[in-house]
Amino acid sequence: MGSLEVERTTTGWAATDPSGVLSPYTYSLRNTGPEDVFIKVICCGICHTDIHQIKNDLGMSRYPMVPGHEVVGEVVEVGSSVNKFSVGETVGVGCLVGCCGSCRPCKSDVEQYCNKKIWSYNDVYTDGKPTQGGFAGSMVVDQKFVVKIPEGMSSEQAAPLLCAGVTVYSPLNHFKLKESGLRGGILGLGGVGHMGVKIAKAMGHHVTVISSSDKKKVEALEHLGADDYLVSSDATRMQELSDSLDYIIDTVPVFHPLEPYLSLLKLDGKLILTGVINTPLQFLTPVVMLGRKVITGSFIGSIKETEEMLDFCKEKDLTSMIEVVNMDYINTAFERLEKNDVRYRFVVDVAASKL
Amino acid sequence: MGSLEVERTTTGWAATDPSGVLSPYTYSLRNTGPEDVFIKVICCGICHTDIHQIKNDLGMSRYPMVPGHEVVGEVVEVGSSVNKFSVGETVGVGCLVGCCGSCRPCKSDVEQYCNKKIWSYNDVYTDGKPTQGGFAGSMVVDQKFVVKIPEGMSSEQAAPLLCAGVTVYSPLNHFKLKESGLRGGILGLGGVGHMGVKIAKAMGHHVTVISSSDKKKVEALEHLGADDYLVSSDATRMQELSDSLDYIIDTVPVFHPLEPYLSLLKLDGKLILTGVINTPLQFLTPVVMLGRKVITGSFIGSIKETEEMLDFCKEKDLTSMIEVVNMDYINTAFERLEKNDVRYRFVVDVAASKL
Repeated sequence: MGSLEVERTTTGWAATDPSGVLSPYTYSLRNTGPEDVFIKVICCGICHTDIHQIKNDLGMSRYPMVPGHEVVGEVVEVGSSVNKFSVGETVGVGCLVGCCGSCRPCKSDVEQYCNKKIWSYNDVYTDGKPTQGGFAGSMVVDQKFVVKIPEGMSSEQAAPLLCAGVTVYSPLNHFKLKESGLRGGILGLGGVGHMGVKIAKAMGHHVTVISSSDKKKVEALEHLGADDYLVSSDATRMQELSDSLDYIIDTVPVFHPLEPYLSLLKLDGKLILTGVINTPLQFLTPVVMLGRKVITGSFIGSIKETEEMLDFCKEKDLTSMIEVVNMDYINTAFERLEKNDVRYRFVVDVAASKL
Repeated sequence: MGSLEVERTTTGWAATDPSGVLSPYTYSLRNTGPEDVFIKVICCGICHTDIHQIKNDLGMSRYPMVPGHEVVGEVVEVGSSVNKFSVGETVGVGCLVGCCGSCRPCKSDVEQYCNKKIWSYNDVYTDGKPTQGGFAGSMVVDQKFVVKIPEGMSSEQAAPLLCAGVTVYSPLNHFKLKESGLRGGILGLGGVGHMGVKIAKAMGHHVTVISSSDKKKVEALEHLGADDYLVSSDATRMQELSDSLDYIIDTVPVFHPLEPYLSLLKLDGKLILTGVINTPLQFLTPVVMLGRKVITGSFIGSIKETEEMLDFCKEKDLTSMIEVVNMDYINTAFERLEKNDVRYRFVVDVAASKL
């Protein structure tokens, strides 16, 4: 272990106001406490949520803000009580870095539902300092919120799994939808949606991508391996596929009617929302009641599920489709992501960016 | 068995147009087929759905229509293949009298979700004739849709269980919410809601009645045995009880916002809709996602669940609160039900009404 007394600084790229433009920003990191892991960041994925945060879309942004919550790095120092990790290992950090540890969700290993959870960035840590994310040289994180990246998995491939991957894996796990042979729908083909196709296919499901246009049909079927592609305005095919799906993972982050998708579900089928939407969604009760259908939602996943999911992806040799960029491209990457102009996830090569 | 060749008639009370006014009507019954049970009606409960049907609120009414789907009667004749029932037994008939028998719901013993189900009235039977309900002297029903009324349970008490009772029991059963010690909410205190309090209490749950006013507070707590009473406009108590319920059975048959009730649910809590509502319901996705809450619905229950529920009610000595009336009072009863002026279910004493 190095000295624990000297104040340490790191440089990240921060938004400083709701314009959301990022620029270099140097700030101090806490010393490595007994439970902490000091991590040198290797790479970090860009998630759509980062845009909401840097632009203050949710009205809760604090600046300067270094975003980034799909972080892969190398352990360079561990605290005295850290037993899960050793220096030199490749590890990951996702959306959260803290929780209360004593509430029902925490005690049930679903700490993502703790009311006192601490976000990886744009939050306040237990020491009163702002949390800062993964578009930075280093992070100090409580070992509870650090996961091992399986040997042989590349850091760039691992990054999108830490949010997009577990966002899909967690509900399939929780709602007992992992068994082979199920028929699933993935509504919306962005970062989470593309991960949904990959993970559901790896589970042995028959996967239908549902989209508002046929623009991504070839990609979905030929590059991502989906089994079917359904354009939601195609009334004939929507009717044909009614009562056919066990679940739909709904990744659409804007208002959309739910009835057409509820109708695609079998008896007891589940519509699982993963996108935060500002306007209320609507449904007619008979569509739900007469097939005992379930509308639910899921929020990222637990650390336990993240570990399981990483092992699952390693075992299945699952790869995501990513575009690797350097840090000085990050503002352009955010602009392109906002226009949905990426197949399907940007990953910033932080180590190569020499911050 | 009596002669199977002579055409039989019975007299019921039928609506003849969307005014919904019922008057005596005589019609023929099919002969008792091999699988049929010929039943002399003893009594029949009045359900709110009957009003929608007789007044053509759903635009699917056929006249003349004899409503009534909480029917208790005595077996007076059985078909040659009937093995479940004997002459003289007291039996019940609920909302359905037919299903396809071969679809996935039918094969899973949840025939209430069969797309080809046949309603007890206002439907067409396999012989092409209209089905007619329980406000009549007799019915002929396929044995599959007939249940035994447990010995010692009065006919009047049994009647409301056949729709209102199983509407509550079925989702508690299906969603694994029968264990003692759960905390449940009953939203709305009409026919189904009052049955909900009774059944949930009998399961050993802590039951909170949630209502828009305090008008029914004394009744709920003192007569029905609820543990708590929550007025939805009481912001302080709504806040106090947030994150406290395992489930809410929502019996409200008109538009209402869902967020206040979703907030009362714990992590993984379930909001179970049982009322058909003409206007869409709304919710905000974060309220669902951030507690993995479930919005679902349930439609009556299966014959298997009806049998289980009757045994459960018998074992627990559960009684419903009913007002017994004669057939010539039925139009007044419908008027009063429409104004929610009944504690909590009308049951028509058909046998005493000498049709």
